[in-house]
Amino acid sequence: MNDKIVIGYLGPIGTYTGIAVNHLFSHLKSFKLKEFPNIQKCLKAANQNHTNYTVVPIENSIGGSVNMTLDWLIHEIKVPILGEVHLPIHHELLAHPNQISHQYHELIYGHPQALKQCERYLINNYEHIKLCPTDSSAEAARIIANNPDEPWLAIANSMAKEIYGLIDLEKNIEDNATNTTRFIVLGNEPLALSNHNMKSSCIISFPENDLMVLYNVLGVFKEQSINPTKIASAPMKTVLGEYVFLIDLDTTNKDENFQKACSNIRDLNCTLRHLGTYPTLLAKNELFN
Amino acid sequence: MNDKIVIGYLGPIGTYTGIAVNHLFSHLKSFKLKEFPNIQKCLKAANQNHTNYTVVPIENSIGGSVNMTLDWLIHEIKVPILGEVHLPIHHELLAHPNQISHQYHELIYGHPQALKQCERYLINNYEHIKLCPTDSSAEAARIIANNPDEPWLAIANSMAKEIYGLIDLEKNIEDNATNTTRFIVLGNEPLALSNHNMKSSCIISFPENDLMVLYNVLGVFKEQSINPTKIASAPMKTVLGEYVFLIDLDTTNKDENFQKACSNIRDLNCTLRHLGTYPTLLAKNELFN
Repeated sequence: MNDKIVIGYLGPIGTYTGIAVNHLFSHLKSFKLKEFPNIQKCLKAANQNHTNYTVVPIENSIGGSVNMTLDWLIHEIKVPILGEVHLPIHHELLAHPNQISHQYHELIYGHPQALKQCERYLINNYEHIKLCPTDSSAEAARIIANNPDEPWLAIANSMAKEIYGLIDLEKNIEDNATNTTRFIVLGNEPLALSNHNMKSSCIISFPENDLMVLYNVLGVFKEQSINPTKIASAPMKTVLGEYVFLIDLDTTNKDENFQKACSNIRDLNCTLRHLGTYPTLLAKNELFN
Repeated sequence: MNDKIVIGYLGPIGTYTGIAVNHLFSHLKSFKLKEFPNIQKCLKAANQNHTNYTVVPIENSIGGSVNMTLDWLIHEIKVPILGEVHLPIHHELLAHPNQISHQYHELIYGHPQALKQCERYLINNYEHIKLCPTDSSAEAARIIANNPDEPWLAIANSMAKEIYGLIDLEKNIEDNATNTTRFIVLGNEPLALSNHNMKSSCIISFPENDLMVLYNVLGVFKEQSINPTKIASAPMKTVLGEYVFLIDLDTTNKDENFQKACSNIRDLNCTLRHLGTYPTLLAKNELFN
């Protein structure tokens, strides 16, 4: 049993990241899940080779970049990205069965990204209720499951609802029906995924923190007919106003144009680190059947 | 008394935003503070003219952009930026006087940005303690002040320590001594601030969400000798992979080159919205004396 593949993810059981794991590893006959309570602990375990693969959220179509993941990719870890999955996200407003007829709910627990993705619904329906951030959506569900006498609610998915024995007061409360989260899988071992929809991710910083060098960098990619699919800045963590960029590109590390572009960008005195070339899986449904 | 200027800010009393307010409005003889429990409520009040001026954090040198502020600037509000202050941020680990000799503290409360800014300290010293996110640093201090019998700690500033009668277990626990937060002030009325260190902020989106158009946009600024000081992307909130950019520039709306650049960028079929031209105040000390 000890030689089982270990997959670390943002837990506890019932998180959206757990659903992403099922989509990414459906080809494996068996694996062992290892849950971590937050993104930092997931990525630290990945860096220390305590897991074979690790799955974390990186971006949502409403809430934007998950800053913690970007920060650790840029500053803390050296483990390459092996793949990603785009997962449709549907949130439910959940209550403990004892609390469904309660008139005045006091609090709503939810992951900050989930609270953000349901912001308009919450303003329209629960403007004066206190919102309590949690480390994950499943954690929000677990808190209200463990406190049946409190007039509290949680935002989580239908899997967490089943696992924690809760009732949905309303389904699909996200502000946008196309709400989608992108999860990445990291690891030091090869991973057998499909090899279409490939992209490459790079971290690039500029000499003397001159942001106008981004113009030259994009010019190099343009010259090599490589298109960016995401351009995000993150703090250099030196002084305010110094940035590093994460750029995703529609190319692979085997593409000679990409190799040429990397070389030309380094000639501009930029630092460039290749985080990985990997496929994108598109999950049709939120839950994996 | 009713004609007093009303300044909205992220409260409760004792937040870093409250300190930023003191720096920004030291020239006013009197004003009335109106605290809001989160950034959304601050910005909603600004948009509804319930305040004359409103102050919120937008960016930290370690934690990066405050996504909620960026999101509301881009998608929700129409109130211009009138000024900004860069405030050095020093965090303290605080305990209730009843709890300072406690051996095993269970929880540390803190704003997610504060927890992020002290991440290395927390991993080195409190790796196994649970971190509980709050809406503000002062809220974290208030929670432990109101629960003197619980073995809880909070991360907040020295002003919150005094206000809530807490003791510091350690000072300056931020991971980087240059830790700085940038706060913006928004409002529909003119604000008498110094007029040096001016910058302009714009929101720009590209035709057909083609990120390579950023190359052309930067080219226009280069041609007009205007330099970007920040380039940040945020979700368009349509589908995953569509972005809008917030770009800060070292220019003013009176600069003919900037007017020409805006016109040339609109000719590229980009949409461009000017969020404001405003001065930067550099606060030397965390606290305002």
